[in-house]
Amino acid sequence: MIGLSSYAGVMENLMNPAEEQPPSSPLTNSWSKKQEPCKNQRSKGVGGFVLVHAGAGYHSESKAKEYKHVCKRACQRAVDQLKAGALAVEAVAAALVELEDSPFTNAGMGSNLNLSGEIECDASIMDGKSLHFGAVGAISGIKNPVLVANRLLSEAQKGKLSAGRIPPCFLVGRGAHDWAVSHGIPPCPVEKMATKFSLSAYKRNKRKMELAEKMDTGHNQTKKRRQSSETENGSGCLDTVGAVVVDLEGNVAAAVSSGGLAMKHPGRVGQAAHYGCGCWAENACNMNPYSTAVSTSGCGEHLIRTMLARECSAAMQSEDAHQALLEAMQNKFISSPFLASEDRVLGGVIVLRCCRCVEAQPSQNIQGILVEFLWSHTTESMCVGYMSAQDSKAKTHISRLPPGTVPGQSLAIEGGVCRLMGVVE
Amino acid sequence: MIGLSSYAGVMENLMNPAEEQPPSSPLTNSWSKKQEPCKNQRSKGVGGFVLVHAGAGYHSESKAKEYKHVCKRACQRAVDQLKAGALAVEAVAAALVELEDSPFTNAGMGSNLNLSGEIECDASIMDGKSLHFGAVGAISGIKNPVLVANRLLSEAQKGKLSAGRIPPCFLVGRGAHDWAVSHGIPPCPVEKMATKFSLSAYKRNKRKMELAEKMDTGHNQTKKRRQSSETENGSGCLDTVGAVVVDLEGNVAAAVSSGGLAMKHPGRVGQAAHYGCGCWAENACNMNPYSTAVSTSGCGEHLIRTMLARECSAAMQSEDAHQALLEAMQNKFISSPFLASEDRVLGGVIVLRCCRCVEAQPSQNIQGILVEFLWSHTTESMCVGYMSAQDSKAKTHISRLPPGTVPGQSLAIEGGVCRLMGVVE
Repeated sequence: MIGLSSYAGVMENLMNPAEEQPPSSPLTNSWSKKQEPCKNQRSKGVGGFVLVHAGAGYHSESKAKEYKHVCKRACQRAVDQLKAGALAVEAVAAALVELEDSPFTNAGMGSNLNLSGEIECDASIMDGKSLHFGAVGAISGIKNPVLVANRLLSEAQKGKLSAGRIPPCFLVGRGAHDWAVSHGIPPCPVEKMATKFSLSAYKRNKRKMELAEKMDTGHNQTKKRRQSSETENGSGCLDTVGAVVVDLEGNVAAAVSSGGLAMKHPGRVGQAAHYGCGCWAENACNMNPYSTAVSTSGCGEHLIRTMLARECSAAMQSEDAHQALLEAMQNKFISSPFLASEDRVLGGVIVLRCCRCVEAQPSQNIQGILVEFLWSHTTESMCVGYMSAQDSKAKTHISRLPPGTVPGQSLAIEGGVCRLMGVVE
Repeated sequence: MIGLSSYAGVMENLMNPAEEQPPSSPLTNSWSKKQEPCKNQRSKGVGGFVLVHAGAGYHSESKAKEYKHVCKRACQRAVDQLKAGALAVEAVAAALVELEDSPFTNAGMGSNLNLSGEIECDASIMDGKSLHFGAVGAISGIKNPVLVANRLLSEAQKGKLSAGRIPPCFLVGRGAHDWAVSHGIPPCPVEKMATKFSLSAYKRNKRKMELAEKMDTGHNQTKKRRQSSETENGSGCLDTVGAVVVDLEGNVAAAVSSGGLAMKHPGRVGQAAHYGCGCWAENACNMNPYSTAVSTSGCGEHLIRTMLARECSAAMQSEDAHQALLEAMQNKFISSPFLASEDRVLGGVIVLRCCRCVEAQPSQNIQGILVEFLWSHTTESMCVGYMSAQDSKAKTHISRLPPGTVPGQSLAIEGGVCRLMGVVE
């Protein structure tokens, strides 16, 4: 059994990755639904839950501590917001800001550089309550792209602009930058967005590309296109960030932010800015018994063409969350007819689903939200963190594919369950 | 009965709009499935069918002739390609080029100007055979944005770039322009993209906006946002173009192109560049008995948030195409929970669905493709054209909402059936 993670109120049962055992099958699908609502969770008016990730890709042991630390800080930021009474959408944006601000993640500061040595970021956010969505693509010179996406979302909620014009939900490039600045979001000098690490990775990647193209001179086009000397993060999977949140009212929200593929063509926009592909959030309604929130990471083009966020969200209306996500990742991603020509299908998701639950007790009614949270990836690893606003203890974890399995063809899936309880007076 | 259009091989039964009668209900949903395969359709190796539109919006009678004429020319371009043996994806691109080149449509040349007086276009294309997709957003200085989208699609089909990099499927802004030029698509001086008509509309819109904002001085923000003096094409619905094609092999393809909302913010990207929103094409497979192709037009933000192209495509797997599209437009668009806060939901779609059919005859086997084609819109009108490669007779039609019904709350739906027959030797 591998990757068992059980979260029961006080998050006491997440197995230490060091204790993991290799599985007998390439599919990591262990799962536990241990539910132990704790007394200390039965507080009034304070609650919510956040699940974040710092990328589906490859997380070296040497940097594991940093990745976990930024996930923890992001959880704390979201929980601070929830405790201050913020709705899920504000809390998820706060988590993203922390993730973007880390120089270790491929989002905001420290993002991958494109072919021209520039940083262009994608980000989006969705509010499950209003079902509004905001996104920016290929934006430069803004420290926190998610704040622009969030501002687009909130501006659109206000209704039409002057002269009956419909407010935009998706802005790109220079126009997105200028809109942000005109809405009070300060510009950031582009040279401050790059880090020592991202600049040196750019130089190494450029040399690799030049070498690869030189080696191809005289070879045919097919060979050129199958060049095996890959750029670092050539698959574009590492360190994109995302978060999903439920607040105590049961509203969900999701957000995603990415610097995109290393050495991407200028103007390339990935799944992080694409509706239904980078994130999805939908409160329960007549049609859907569960509120769901999803954020994706991985190869943008694969995630766009499979619309993975929305597919996973739709799948989560099935009874068994774990089985539903497993089937969605297998059938709608790894074996998707939309990616039939791809040899490796690289990506990961974090998922929340929630429903209301009531427990009648002799002295009082306990009402709350049952939260199931999951992550799954086909990449070598995925770094996640989660926290309940009721006990404020963050758990972080680097999930890995079972040894010997092939990234892009196998998957890992883990998760847990949490009850957020409150007294109904 | 209104808007009845029946297409039976030689397209003889499309009612003249002048003959239309007002319906008793606000829903225009008449439909005829008259199938009359004609002798002259039973040719070998030549075939296919194209359906195009020149926008869901408002088409004045004074310009009706021009709109119809460009639809006819676009059909002819696609059919010329089909007759030359092109696949659906090439034929649909050819139709789009013709639609973009018309100064009357809001795509390519003559597109709406944005707030800064610039033209920024969106376009995308999807190939139902390979399920590949290419899109450009907010691109300037390129006469035919659809050709860039198509080139992105075909480049991605070739596999990875040097050093293992994944080719982009979506480029925006300056980067998209530069990629196009580096791939042999000539730039077009920006001043040549605007027309006398688009420039004068821009000036009028600018005055209206200034007046609207002036009138609001001293009023509160709510009033400002509900300003009723709308910009011309303020709803962004007029003259976006699209096409759907099936070739004789039964492959489908769809494409869409748009100049976007008049007076949009620079960098705004609408549904025409958004996967699943602007166009969709999917050949029949094990899961899906029908090949489907859809192209949308209307308010980009409404079409993004409802993912209308993909929703209509998915609905088309039901038995009754007409009923399926009617329900999709009603439930997934007009009454969509994603647009609950919108007072008017403005858009239109053209749809093809096809399946193989066989007719055993004494002397020979007749094999062919049964094509059902439909259009539906919530806007005042929608201009469509269609043509079979087997008889090369184009039909054009301006579909209108029934008099007295409210755009954005009612819909019109029309269509027909065609059999493309070929001898199996």
